[in-house]
Amino acid sequence: MESLISEGGYNIVFNMLSMGIAAMLFTTIFLVMAKDRVLPRYRMAVMVSATVTGIAAYHYFRMFDSFNHAFGPDAIEGTVYNVGYRYVDWLLTVPLLLVEVIAVLGLARALQSSLLVRLVPAAALMIGLGYPGDAQLDIAGIAPSVWGLLSTIPFLYILYVLFVELGKSLDKQSAAVQRKIKELRLLLLATWGVYPIAFIANMNATGFDEGGFVLREVGYSVADILAKCLFGLVIFTIARIKSAEDDASFAKSEFKD
Amino acid sequence: MESLISEGGYNIVFNMLSMGIAAMLFTTIFLVMAKDRVLPRYRMAVMVSATVTGIAAYHYFRMFDSFNHAFGPDAIEGTVYNVGYRYVDWLLTVPLLLVEVIAVLGLARALQSSLLVRLVPAAALMIGLGYPGDAQLDIAGIAPSVWGLLSTIPFLYILYVLFVELGKSLDKQSAAVQRKIKELRLLLLATWGVYPIAFIANMNATGFDEGGFVLREVGYSVADILAKCLFGLVIFTIARIKSAEDDASFAKSEFKD
Repeated sequence: MESLISEGGYNIVFNMLSMGIAAMLFTTIFLVMAKDRVLPRYRMAVMVSATVTGIAAYHYFRMFDSFNHAFGPDAIEGTVYNVGYRYVDWLLTVPLLLVEVIAVLGLARALQSSLLVRLVPAAALMIGLGYPGDAQLDIAGIAPSVWGLLSTIPFLYILYVLFVELGKSLDKQSAAVQRKIKELRLLLLATWGVYPIAFIANMNATGFDEGGFVLREVGYSVADILAKCLFGLVIFTIARIKSAEDDASFAKSEFKD
Repeated sequence: MESLISEGGYNIVFNMLSMGIAAMLFTTIFLVMAKDRVLPRYRMAVMVSATVTGIAAYHYFRMFDSFNHAFGPDAIEGTVYNVGYRYVDWLLTVPLLLVEVIAVLGLARALQSSLLVRLVPAAALMIGLGYPGDAQLDIAGIAPSVWGLLSTIPFLYILYVLFVELGKSLDKQSAAVQRKIKELRLLLLATWGVYPIAFIANMNATGFDEGGFVLREVGYSVADILAKCLFGLVIFTIARIKSAEDDASFAKSEFKD
């Protein structure tokens, strides 16, 4: 059987998926170890971050195997690369990423709940609406681009809540924390912005198009690593800064200056 | 199918890769256990060291399998040994090795940030520029030696920051710590110096050259074990010395004299 993909394209996707495994797995292990380096009140945020990268590590192992079964030298005929793993991963992890952000801020519990009951369903809806387009399912003849557009509506709503509504409560945070939260939001905007581009890269293919496929997989992997690993590490840094601000004796034992 | 590699060459590389797994895996487990034997403010450095060897352990498992699939008795036709694993590993671990060094010194936070924002991108750039040469990719007809030379520029910059800039802050450290830091820098210089030699060993091969390949894999593996495991253990030793210097009761509980 002739392979569907060139050696170069195969190697790029293969190495990106393996990098995804390494990044997700060891960010998880690091965050599990590192949770004791913040005050108890911020450990929930660090634990949720570790859960996100842990779930992603599982899916990267699965995707790596699925990719090899579909395109590797010992590919099994009739095996198709399962993009469903990505959407199941996102369905579980994207709402949790928003939980991380809210949890690390140490907001009043009423405000925390009111933000989460809006962010979590919006995140789930955003992922759910993207899937039929990316998997090129034929549901009532709706085109992939329409699913992509529908999925953008909850995305914009999430941005509104994070930038406008959450923005109002930020002035209660210290200057150092405010700076980090702004970095976090920009990271979210920049990395989540990659997903629609990767989605579009593969959208117009009828059947299998190598260029679009490779671009999509590289885009999703890079965006995932930044949006989960780097994001989780920024959350951890915010938790460290806030712990030191809240408790002088903690600051003294953890930092030299 | 005739094997591409002699039995002797196969055995050397096979055993070196297995040694890599053992060294990386058990340095990781040791460092995770040992992190509580230093003061909280130095644990981050030990945890980052454990993360580096953990990421490397993952990649040595993968390289061991890749080598066997490409050259072993049950080799699968069309499978190529994937040197990409090494570069993905280095892309993730080399910046973290520099984070270890800075984290263990317990510098003022502003100085720490200013060193890291220069060292981390330089390390990533050094690895990124080496890869096309080592993987013999044809990008605009640029020769492997040119990629090797380009990659040397950020390497020299890193040495400048570590030897000149960091040197200025060293006189605030005790004599024992200064001695260890100098050992650490020499270890870094000696082991990182092996990589270009191993790179050059395989550079001029057109197609597969067994001598160059075996030399490269042995060189990379020995250098990796010294630059990650031994390096991490020296970091741990510095963290122990500094912990004892900072806190007399810790010193009393950890050491007999």
